[in-house]
Amino acid sequence: MIRISIDAMGGDHGPKVTLPGLMRVVERRSDVTFLIFGLADEVQPVLETLPRLKAVSTFEHCEVAVRMDDKPSQALRKGRYKSSMWRAIEAVKEGRADACISAGNTGALMAMAKFCLRPMPSIDRPAIAAVWPTKRSESIVLDVGATIGGDAKQLVDFAILGSAMARAVFQIERPSVGLLNVGVEEVKGQEQVKEAGRMLRDASLDSMNYAGFVEGDDIAKGTTDVVVTEGFSGNIALKTAEGSARLIAEYLREAMNRTLMARIGYVLARSAFQRLREKLDVRRSNGGVFLGLNGLVVKSHGGTDDEGFAAAVELGYDMARRKLMETIRRELDQYHARMAPPAAALPLVVGGE
Amino acid sequence: MIRISIDAMGGDHGPKVTLPGLMRVVERRSDVTFLIFGLADEVQPVLETLPRLKAVSTFEHCEVAVRMDDKPSQALRKGRYKSSMWRAIEAVKEGRADACISAGNTGALMAMAKFCLRPMPSIDRPAIAAVWPTKRSESIVLDVGATIGGDAKQLVDFAILGSAMARAVFQIERPSVGLLNVGVEEVKGQEQVKEAGRMLRDASLDSMNYAGFVEGDDIAKGTTDVVVTEGFSGNIALKTAEGSARLIAEYLREAMNRTLMARIGYVLARSAFQRLREKLDVRRSNGGVFLGLNGLVVKSHGGTDDEGFAAAVELGYDMARRKLMETIRRELDQYHARMAPPAAALPLVVGGE
Repeated sequence: MIRISIDAMGGDHGPKVTLPGLMRVVERRSDVTFLIFGLADEVQPVLETLPRLKAVSTFEHCEVAVRMDDKPSQALRKGRYKSSMWRAIEAVKEGRADACISAGNTGALMAMAKFCLRPMPSIDRPAIAAVWPTKRSESIVLDVGATIGGDAKQLVDFAILGSAMARAVFQIERPSVGLLNVGVEEVKGQEQVKEAGRMLRDASLDSMNYAGFVEGDDIAKGTTDVVVTEGFSGNIALKTAEGSARLIAEYLREAMNRTLMARIGYVLARSAFQRLREKLDVRRSNGGVFLGLNGLVVKSHGGTDDEGFAAAVELGYDMARRKLMETIRRELDQYHARMAPPAAALPLVVGGE
Repeated sequence: MIRISIDAMGGDHGPKVTLPGLMRVVERRSDVTFLIFGLADEVQPVLETLPRLKAVSTFEHCEVAVRMDDKPSQALRKGRYKSSMWRAIEAVKEGRADACISAGNTGALMAMAKFCLRPMPSIDRPAIAAVWPTKRSESIVLDVGATIGGDAKQLVDFAILGSAMARAVFQIERPSVGLLNVGVEEVKGQEQVKEAGRMLRDASLDSMNYAGFVEGDDIAKGTTDVVVTEGFSGNIALKTAEGSARLIAEYLREAMNRTLMARIGYVLARSAFQRLREKLDVRRSNGGVFLGLNGLVVKSHGGTDDEGFAAAVELGYDMARRKLMETIRRELDQYHARMAPPAAALPLVVGGE
């Protein structure tokens, strides 16, 4: 049985979207239970209308809901220990849930998740991973905005976290990993990216196939299963791609509305356009995954509908069922065991001085 | 009369594409002359077939052509002073041409342009500016990859260079300028981006409307006329957008080929699809503009066709005709005059210690 904790108040529409989202998951998965946190006044009336969901859920009332426009510091001040967001995260910490899902605001959710779950030993900074549609299928891109900047060691951490997630989500035995850079030549790019490349090559881990540098257009090509970058450029890449997709959709709409022939063509090709819409549907790859913390947290888009929220919940479900946390712990241990200087070598270094 | 120097050998196809490209420009502009540099064996046979072009051109033979895969250092070693690329740039330096166009490789072209033309006084680093299609019309994004990193002062330089280009290319009196960042809140982002924001706000220049921070999706929205960032994230944004556009085009092609109805619809809506293709056509906004050097250099895509090369040439033509170099010089002077501490204030500072 997979146990998921839910911040029912998160997102632009709160329980009216999150609970119907859970209902969709219940219809599709038989081995899931929910721990739902929220304001009783708002959650219970909706829950009463969904008896099948109610049957697999435990509801716990909270006094506070974090708002979508609360700053992280505000959210922590007013919502720590008592908000639905905090308590859904805390349920993971206490071992009552295998993963936590919230459509609440990203900054607040990350601040609370860091405060409550703490980064894993050896991880300095958590990352947010996005599932990105590609020509081949899907890839994982991280960090898309948890923190700005990052040294070589942090990029290597992200590579390990991302490849563990690729294994859990895509079930690829040895995912390929690329470092985002501005040119595939060895000489180019930021120092820390080059250094991370050397570290990954030297480590030659069993768990991933380090494939070198990739460029911005390689993300959509699906050149590697995992694309690693620091949060500034990762966030800009993600938002630039979203902006480009919306721009092209707009161009297409305009073009198909310009002439009668085009409109007739559009009607005939409706199913094709429907298919295109589905391909581009952010709901299908909805959810940023927080990696590097002592517990699984998935952030759903705030403006999503019930199907989108269900997709984020199912992403959390899949990762929990495939024991992502255990995989990450094991692979971090392996990396550090391999990279630790052999004990015998230390005196030699000291003696050499 | 606008005089343009041309590296006829640049690009994947050399004179077979560059000269027919010039021919298109001659058909559309009456006040242009060309200084064409290249290998006589390859250029002259093509030029003989284009008498109207020949009539407005001067051809100068060069012994060396820089190859598309030459490294910048190789290109400089073998091509300095004698390659068609170098001599086309040098013609600008010598005042024989108002702008130089090459479809040769970016790294080599930038290395030669820096070496030959030198950065303008007060400019530490040149930038490459791209013209980006947006929902509103077009914007200018820089730096898309001339150099990696950049401090606040360099970002301010880029803002001045980009807004001068926006005035020349879009004929906007006071272009709006945004700094690319990861969130519009003042507290977010890289230190140097925040510092550049403060400097631009304090300067409150007549020549631009500094509009604050913008995010990745604002580029395609056209939120500001100019988007400023350092070369690493700018290059990743540009290539990610290109990758996304290609992915969506691929999805669309697949979708329209799946059923008979969709194929019939496609035929009826052909003109609409043609229109979409034109909108997405990189040839129309072909050309990276090198800014911050003592002379105008435009880089055309290497793989472009004659229409694309013509677009890059016309971009150089427009900027030369609207005296971009003079505008940039004037606005840099204005900025530095405004930012220089008043002479009288200096003793006070010294006395205060």
